[in-house]
This record gives sequence, C-alpha cells and structure tokens, in this order.
Amino acid sequence: MKKLVAEFIGTAVLVLFGCGAAVLGGAAIGQTGIAFAFGLAIVAMAYGIGPISGCHVNPAVSFGVFIAGRMPASEMLRYWLAQFAGALVGALILAIIAGSTANLGQNGWGPGYLGEYAMPAALIFEIVFTAIFVIVILGSTASAAPIGFAGLAIGLTLVAIHLVGIQVTGVSVNPARSFGPAILAGGKALSQLWLFIVAPLAGGALGALLYRFRTLEA
Amino acid sequence: MKKLVAEFIGTAVLVLFGCGAAVLGGAAIGQTGIAFAFGLAIVAMAYGIGPISGCHVNPAVSFGVFIAGRMPASEMLRYWLAQFAGALVGALILAIIAGSTANLGQNGWGPGYLGEYAMPAALIFEIVFTAIFVIVILGSTASAAPIGFAGLAIGLTLVAIHLVGIQVTGVSVNPARSFGPAILAGGKALSQLWLFIVAPLAGGALGALLYRFRTLEA
Amino acid sequence: MKKLVAEFIGTAVLVLFGCGAAVLGGAAIGQTGIAFAFGLAIVAMAYGIGPISGCHVNPAVSFGVFIAGRMPASEMLRYWLAQFAGALVGALILAIIAGSTANLGQNGWGPGYLGEYAMPAALIFEIVFTAIFVIVILGSTASAAPIGFAGLAIGLTLVAIHLVGIQVTGVSVNPARSFGPAILAGGKALSQLWLFIVAPLAGGALGALLYRFRTLEA
Amino acid sequence: MKKLVAEFIGTAVLVLFGCGAAVLGGAAIGQTGIAFAFGLAIVAMAYGIGPISGCHVNPAVSFGVFIAGRMPASEMLRYWLAQFAGALVGALILAIIAGSTANLGQNGWGPGYLGEYAMPAALIFEIVFTAIFVIVILGSTASAAPIGFAGLAIGLTLVAIHLVGIQVTGVSVNPARSFGPAILAGGKALSQLWLFIVAPLAGGALGALLYRFRTLEA
Repeated sequence: MKKLVAEFIGTAVLVLFGCGAAVLGGAAIGQTGIAFAFGLAIVAMAYGIGPISGCHVNPAVSFGVFIAGRMPASEMLRYWLAQFAGALVGALILAIIAGSTANLGQNGWGPGYLGEYAMPAALIFEIVFTAIFVIVILGSTASAAPIGFAGLAIGLTLVAIHLVGIQVTGVSVNPARSFGPAILAGGKALSQLWLFIVAPLAGGALGALLYRFRTLEA
Repeated sequence: MKKLVAEFIGTAVLVLFGCGAAVLGGAAIGQTGIAFAFGLAIVAMAYGIGPISGCHVNPAVSFGVFIAGRMPASEMLRYWLAQFAGALVGALILAIIAGSTANLGQNGWGPGYLGEYAMPAALIFEIVFTAIFVIVILGSTASAAPIGFAGLAIGLTLVAIHLVGIQVTGVSVNPARSFGPAILAGGKALSQLWLFIVAPLAGGALGALLYRFRTLEA
Repeated sequence: MKKLVAEFIGTAVLVLFGCGAAVLGGAAIGQTGIAFAFGLAIVAMAYGIGPISGCHVNPAVSFGVFIAGRMPASEMLRYWLAQFAGALVGALILAIIAGSTANLGQNGWGPGYLGEYAMPAALIFEIVFTAIFVIVILGSTASAAPIGFAGLAIGLTLVAIHLVGIQVTGVSVNPARSFGPAILAGGKALSQLWLFIVAPLAGGALGALLYRFRTLEA
Repeated sequence: MKKLVAEFIGTAVLVLFGCGAAVLGGAAIGQTGIAFAFGLAIVAMAYGIGPISGCHVNPAVSFGVFIAGRMPASEMLRYWLAQFAGALVGALILAIIAGSTANLGQNGWGPGYLGEYAMPAALIFEIVFTAIFVIVILGSTASAAPIGFAGLAIGLTLVAIHLVGIQVTGVSVNPARSFGPAILAGGKALSQLWLFIVAPLAGGALGALLYRFRTLEA
C-alpha cells in the first residue's frame, strides 16, 4: 500500500512540476526551463520517495520493469492504477492554480501543435525515446550500478529527452503524464491520447527486451 | 551555537544568491537562471555547512523536521531566529550592492506582480509545493537514503519549484526568504508577507505529517 | 560483442539527443539547451550502458584510451566500427523524424556556418577541447577517482564544451558524431568532414599522452 | 611538480571554458549559458585533475586554504605562479581562436560595463561572494564531508555566483581568471585589475578565518 501511495504522489508531482512549468512558467522560462522542470521532478521523487516504490511514476517504466523480469504483472497493474490516478490529481491541482483546463501541458502533434510534426514522426519519437529512457532506468538501477546515482541519471536523461522532443509531441514517454491533462482538457488532447499510451508502452517493451535477452546487461 | 551561525550564514547566502540573481541578473539571465541560482544556493550550503546544522535555512523546513519528530521545539525556535536574522542580513547586503531597497526579489501576487495570479492560487501553490519540498527533504535525508546525495536532490528540487512558480508568487516555500526582502522593501511586499509565512508553514506541516504517520517512510 | 552493441547504441543515442536537440528543438531551446542535450546524453549512456563498454561512444576517446595504454588496438578498431555505425543509424532515425536530411546538426566552419569562424580557429578549437575532454575522461575514470561520478563529470564537461564552441564548429570533439550527419547531409558537411576526424583524434592523442607519461596521473 | 602542472592546466581550462563561453558563445548562449560554462569547467577539472593538486585553479582559494591551515605558504606561492601562468596561456589560446584580444571576457565595472555598477558595489560583491565560495570549498572538502561530491558542489556554486554577478563585475572571485584576459586586453581591464586581485584575496581570507577559528567546522 505504501508503494502505491508513493507512486500516486510521485506521478502527481511529476505532472505538477513538468506540466506546471509549461503552463505557469511558459514563455518566461522557455522550453529549456520546462525540460529541466520535468527531469528535476524525477530527481526530486527518486530521492524523496524512491526507496519506497522504486519511483517509476510512469506506466511505460513499470511495463519495462515487468518485461525485464523485475516485477510481477499483478504489482504492475496496481502501479498503473496509482500512476494514472496520481497524474489526474496532479493535473487537477494544476488546473485549480491555473484557473483553467484549456492548457494543462497536454501532448499532441499536427497542425497547431508546437513544431507541427506529423503523426508518424510523433509515433517514432515516442517509441524510440521511451526505449532509450527505459534502457537508462534498467541500466542505472541494475545491481552492478554505483549506489545512489540512478535518480540523477534518470532525471537528467528526462531533461535531455524534453530538450529534443517538446517541439515534436510535447514529450510524453509516459502514458500517465499524457492521461491526466488530456482527461481534463478534452478535445484534441483526448482524441490523440491513444498514441501517448501505445507508443510509450511499445518503447518501454523494446528497451526492456534488450535486457530480458541480456543484450545490454553488464 | 555553531549550528545557529551555520543557519544564519546559510539563510543569508540563500537570499543573496536567489534574490540576488533576480535583482542583479534579472532579464540578463531570465527566470531559468534565477531558478538555478535559488536551487544551487542550497547545493552550495548543503555541502558547505550541511554537516553542521543540517542546512535547513528555511523555517518551514525546520517546522517539518520538528513535526516529523526529528528535532525538539526549542531547537526549532532557535533555528527560526537564526534563519530570519540571516535572511534580513542577506537582503541588506543585496540592497547595498543593488543601491536600492525597491526591488529585492520580494514575493507577491495579484495585479502588477509577474503573472498576476490571484491570492488563492498563490496560497495553494505555496502550500502544495512546500509540502512536496519537505517530502523530498525528509526522504532524501532519511537514514535509508544513499549518503551524500541529499544536497543535490534538495537543491535541484528547489530549481524545479522555481521554474514552475516564479510567475505565480516569485516562489517562497520559505518564510525567511520572504521576510528579509519584505522588511526592507516595505509596502505591498510587507502587507502580503503573511501568506508567505502561513502557507509554507502549513505546507511544511502537511509534508511532514505523511512521515509522522509513516505513510511515506521507506 | 555486448560491448560493441553498447557502443553502437550509445553513439546512436548521442547523435539522436545532441543533433536531435539542434534539429528538432533548435531556436525553441537555444544553444544552451542544445549544449545540455549533448552532455546529458553522455550522462544517460554512462549510467545506462557504461558498466558494459565504458561508454566511449567516441572514436577520439577510444583512441585516447588506447594511447593511455588502457585498451588494445584491436579492440579500439572494433569500437570505432560500432561507433561510426551507431552514429549513422542515429542520424538516420533523426532524419526520419525530421523528414529531411538537409539539417542534421552537421559540423562545419566558414561563411554561412553559425559564427563564421575560419578553418584554423575550428582546427585549434577541436584539438584543444578534445584534449581537455580526454584528460577529464582519463582522470575521472582512473582507479584513484571516487566511484560513480565519472558519468556526471564527463557529461557536464561536454555541456561546457558545447557552450563554448557551438558558434565555432557546432562542436564535434567526436569523429563519429560528425560522420553520421555528414554522410546523410552530404555537400559541405561531407567536404569539411576531414577536420572533424583529424582534429579530435589529434586532440585525443594529445590529452592521452599527458597520461602516458604520467604527467597528470594522480 | 605534477601538482603545479595540474594547477597550470586547470586554470588555463577555467579561462578557456568560462571566458571562452562569454567571447565565443556570447549572445547565442546568454549569461545563463556563460554561468554554466564557468561552473562546469570546475566540475571538469575537479574530477579530471582534482586528485593531483586539489584543483584550486584560483589564487584566492589557495590563499583561503593556506589561512585555514591546510597548506604551507611556500606551496601556496608556487600554486599562485602556476595559476597566473595558466590563466595567461588560457587567455592566449582563446585570443588565437577568437582572432582578437579586444574581448577576452575581462572583468570590470562602471559606465560601459554590463550593468554599469559602481566600484563599491563591485568591491563588496567580489569580497562577499569569494568568502562564500571559499566556505563551500573548505566545507565540502573537509574530512567529515561525503566522498566525491566536492567537485559538483563547488562547480555548481560557481554557476550560481555567476548567475548573480555577471552584470556586476563579470564575476572574478579569482585573481588569475581576471589576470589572464586583462594582460592581453590591456586598457581599462588592466587599470581595473587591482580590484579583482585585492577583493577575492580579502574574501578568501574572510571565508577561511571562519574555519581557522572553527566557527563553521563540523
């Protein structure tokens, strides 16, 4: 139960920081500032609640951890519930502070969305970068890895992923992070939500399979 | 006594760096630069004076540590005195360098203040983000946490909090950081100071209660 | 074989993140954002795949490691193959997402290229900063160095190198990182590629020779 | 001798990175980018050459270390020579790349210099922030401090100092860093050099005296 509370709070914090920076900070901090807010939220949670739940705060990460054989399916499903619920509550608190649900940092693609990339570009970006993200997570939390550095490595990786991809999709690599804002904002965010569930899960599986077959295990 | 000197210097340094970046750096570094100055001041002090006093440099943090049962009330009150005095001296040195007390990086809300958010948004932001900040502090300094990383985790969390909230309140999450500039700047900063004492203390308590009842303890 | 897979993936990721940030993020993140994407890609890979191959992901680094006497020539040559192939695949994935091979973050100099520096400035920059980069790598991974910090130190050094030199050459200090985009973009990038192979290798040798003669060994 | 080579190279690298970012990167990276280049140069050298010489690369730091009783005067004087010589060579390489000695990132104050602060503001800024810098250095390298973190803490502190003070003096807190560019640029930089020797040394002494009398020692 403690683990689920930690995942719930952690995912809410990720949305509050990352999407919060996009919505409240916006042009005043630029996309470099937004990228750091997303990544440093992971640093915050990795050291704040990491020892409890492992700080996945991301259904694609839990899926990867499951496929890598480090977590049973039943626990993954409970993690998913906590993560989606946390993301929704995080988006809700953000909507209250922002005074609107129109802009909650929702993901997307196509005409009118940031760099106006087409759907296939969005799909490839999300699959490839989630796979890389999960490789970093599995590698930096492996038993051979130096103690304590995983939170920094994973968080700073998420900073870099956002620097690359905010123009493309706003960067999901995390179905829960897309779910919270989309449910409240509705409209296009909701109709495009499928990609940000499918692609990160596919990418998470891809990254983890390299571990499952010990291709990348030290 | 050594602890109180450390808290005094540490809080002065936090105001000098964070508010100093806002006042002296300002538009030349942008809000992303200001956010890093606040957070990296905590990194500086955590490794510079942390081993002496624990480097709270924040009355809301000391309140949270007290509520979590890790510090007696009498010591918390002495810490508070050192922190408020340090913040005042930090703001004073900054006023001397800046040559004015009109702009010392004071917190605020409403018309004419940055993003012009209303008071309830300011209140909710300060409570929620101080609670998260204290959760990160208590989690990363718990006995189960890896040695040495707390200063980086806490400082980088404060960077992220500022990326989100400078537009909302200028970000306090620290009654002393608001107190120093407000006392010297007076006017609106002083009349709005109450929120930046009440909300961070409430948030600090909220974050710590989760620990007190072992909800988030590893 | 595992090592070569790790070097292949790692170099692809470096190009995807660094050149990806330049191409996809571009003006929205600025050169400071691009600099962080390059450096944090190294942080990602150092902790994600570092324990497997040492995470050179750079032929100049492997050359330096060879000259420092820490790697046989035969293994260096296999690393080179994996690194050049990985960089090409990374650039290819980026070209697919970007929908064009015209701009893949290729290196260069002279009229029309960023700060429009002349060739000798480009040559000196690449030699000197690759030498410094290799000194940091050899020093931070020496047996006397504290465990776990090398990835952060090396990655943050690469951030700083990019902050200095994007205007000069776009920053290579890595023949593979220049090779991938140049092969696909062709034209001027390809005709100027020689410098970004020769200069980083010369710089890598220079940095390593200081170690070979134990001038800088602790 | 090895120590002096390390200090020579380290100080050259600090000037090459920090002043190099200001001169070559300039408006393309902004003052936030310049601040990171200065601080991350320290991270680079701390992990690259730190185990050899302690990586002072700053006469004010060596003076502080001497006053704190951790280094004999004779060694401090040799360190000073290596540091001033290294800074000069670093500025020289930068001048060759930049193709001019007119702008080498020299420090200054008054009309025409960045924020146009008056001399007393410059003097106070340099004394106070060098004192804080030396406190962080002595605290984070004390025997009670966690292993390996000093380089990150000191480098990130220097980032924050630059975020605050580039507008005021360009930030010295290091007589050698001011010396190199001033000797080559001449003119106003040379006539104002005295402050950037006197103030950092005074600040370094101030910070160290707190240690000498064990006020801030853990």
